[in-house]
Amino acid sequence: MDFEIERIVALVRENQARVLQLQFPEGLKRYGPGVAKRINERVNVTVLLSGNPCYGACDLDYNSEADLLVHFGHAEIPGLAARRVCFVEVRSEVDVIPTVNDALALITGQRVGIVTNVQHVHKLDSVRRHLESAGLQCSIGSGDGRVKYRGQVLGCNYSSARAIDVDEYLYVGSGTFHALGVALATGKRVIIADPFLRKTSVADVELIMKQRYALVAKAMDAHTFCVLVGTKAGQQRFHLAYKLVEEAIERGYDAYTVTINEVSPWTLYQFPAEAYVNTACPRIAIDDITLFKAPMLTPIEFEMVIGRRDLSGYALDEISCD
Amino acid sequence: MDFEIERIVALVRENQARVLQLQFPEGLKRYGPGVAKRINERVNVTVLLSGNPCYGACDLDYNSEADLLVHFGHAEIPGLAARRVCFVEVRSEVDVIPTVNDALALITGQRVGIVTNVQHVHKLDSVRRHLESAGLQCSIGSGDGRVKYRGQVLGCNYSSARAIDVDEYLYVGSGTFHALGVALATGKRVIIADPFLRKTSVADVELIMKQRYALVAKAMDAHTFCVLVGTKAGQQRFHLAYKLVEEAIERGYDAYTVTINEVSPWTLYQFPAEAYVNTACPRIAIDDITLFKAPMLTPIEFEMVIGRRDLSGYALDEISCD
Repeated sequence: MDFEIERIVALVRENQARVLQLQFPEGLKRYGPGVAKRINERVNVTVLLSGNPCYGACDLDYNSEADLLVHFGHAEIPGLAARRVCFVEVRSEVDVIPTVNDALALITGQRVGIVTNVQHVHKLDSVRRHLESAGLQCSIGSGDGRVKYRGQVLGCNYSSARAIDVDEYLYVGSGTFHALGVALATGKRVIIADPFLRKTSVADVELIMKQRYALVAKAMDAHTFCVLVGTKAGQQRFHLAYKLVEEAIERGYDAYTVTINEVSPWTLYQFPAEAYVNTACPRIAIDDITLFKAPMLTPIEFEMVIGRRDLSGYALDEISCD
Repeated sequence: MDFEIERIVALVRENQARVLQLQFPEGLKRYGPGVAKRINERVNVTVLLSGNPCYGACDLDYNSEADLLVHFGHAEIPGLAARRVCFVEVRSEVDVIPTVNDALALITGQRVGIVTNVQHVHKLDSVRRHLESAGLQCSIGSGDGRVKYRGQVLGCNYSSARAIDVDEYLYVGSGTFHALGVALATGKRVIIADPFLRKTSVADVELIMKQRYALVAKAMDAHTFCVLVGTKAGQQRFHLAYKLVEEAIERGYDAYTVTINEVSPWTLYQFPAEAYVNTACPRIAIDDITLFKAPMLTPIEFEMVIGRRDLSGYALDEISCD
């Protein structure tokens, strides 16, 4: 894995940084002490590791003590950083083509949109060439201002998928969340090519939609709602929360707003409600569905519950760039 | 309980505040939605509740969105607030005198120091009068700059106890932590008068000292230390952490520094170490002793482990006002 030690060392020297904060996402945190050591072998700087949970570039853990923040594992959300941040994206060098080739067997359409996460974003042109050599027509879309690279999707933003008119999508990457997101955001079939496991599959939105509608149905009995606002830099949807609370109160419900950095079941125990509404990271409501004792709704689901939105109008919660 | 709604309403009006953030400690968080409602019945302001854990006035959860922060349940740490904060101390109205009277049976010295937490600080003069009418000589000490009231002790600061020369102390309040803190900080006998339970006892430092020395002994086998720095406003002891890491490395140990807002076992799983050193809230190492998979040392204990401090020189970790 390339942690770009030389680039960091050069930046420290160039900025005469005295204290450096390194922020890793959960999957990479265990590399922190080793990376700190490698930096210190090359340059004399005090290195701090951020110990706070981190799941995206929306979360920038600045520190009044540190001259420079190095954020690993995510692409910058353009314009979000209020202070100087160096992004080390830690691209993957795994060969994606064998798995993409396997995925050809699952592709049924003619016009294919290619999407991925930042780990493989530098491989998209070779993926396109491979698909085109198999006779397919390929598109790679540009996202809105929240997305740095063409073809890149975030757990909270599928604008690069929506930007193109295709029959189906090929998602290159591991996990199922992003592929499900593309499927829900576009209503199209999504083929997953996981190059790490060399596994291909088709995103199955049916299970997740059943879960979501069951949750919406359960929340129909709720009278008191707790609306959450995330305080991480790129998650602060205060005005959305205000709007939701207002809509609830207009319709005779009870609702109050809680600001929170890390949404977890144990912090919410203190806030009694028959349902929660999450305006922080959109993944929380979906990924952590089993963790909360009361339904954790997305803003759109909440509007279904209080009768402000038609039940058939399901849409994924996304954070778009205004 | 007096949440001082009228004072808050007046402050909102006076400051023409548009958005108000309310921050309650864990024990009072459940009152948040009700307090918000009472404020909104009196004045038109958007009320946000802080959902983040809070254990002291060291933790001020400002919010870029809020014009004003109201912090409940703790006395201000003088000079700490970087922005406008209104402190609502939520004093207790429980009658402390019956329990103080019971405590007379446990007091063996002639000169008694009276200490308490902010909940009962307005009762100290009546406590003093009661003890004096029983023929005792009483002192109430002034703490250092971290402590707002005479006789007040914090979980991280016992300067008001150390400031007086007495035979023993009477601690008025619930729980055992503060009383143990006074006993460890002064080496004197401490009688606890818990007015809520109407229970009296003598602080037993023996068990806690056994636990701490067992932990120190266990940590003697450690080679790699993870030194924690708390990022809450009043817990940031960066320079202490730097000093500890330096001392460790000088003596041939491995050590690295992690900045963290909320020290919890699950966030530390990502940081492998044979022992942790906590420079954040001093209570973490003591109260949460059973939660961590490796010894969680105080800075002083760490210096014992690496041979920089004599094993007989045990002292409580405190955050004093520089």
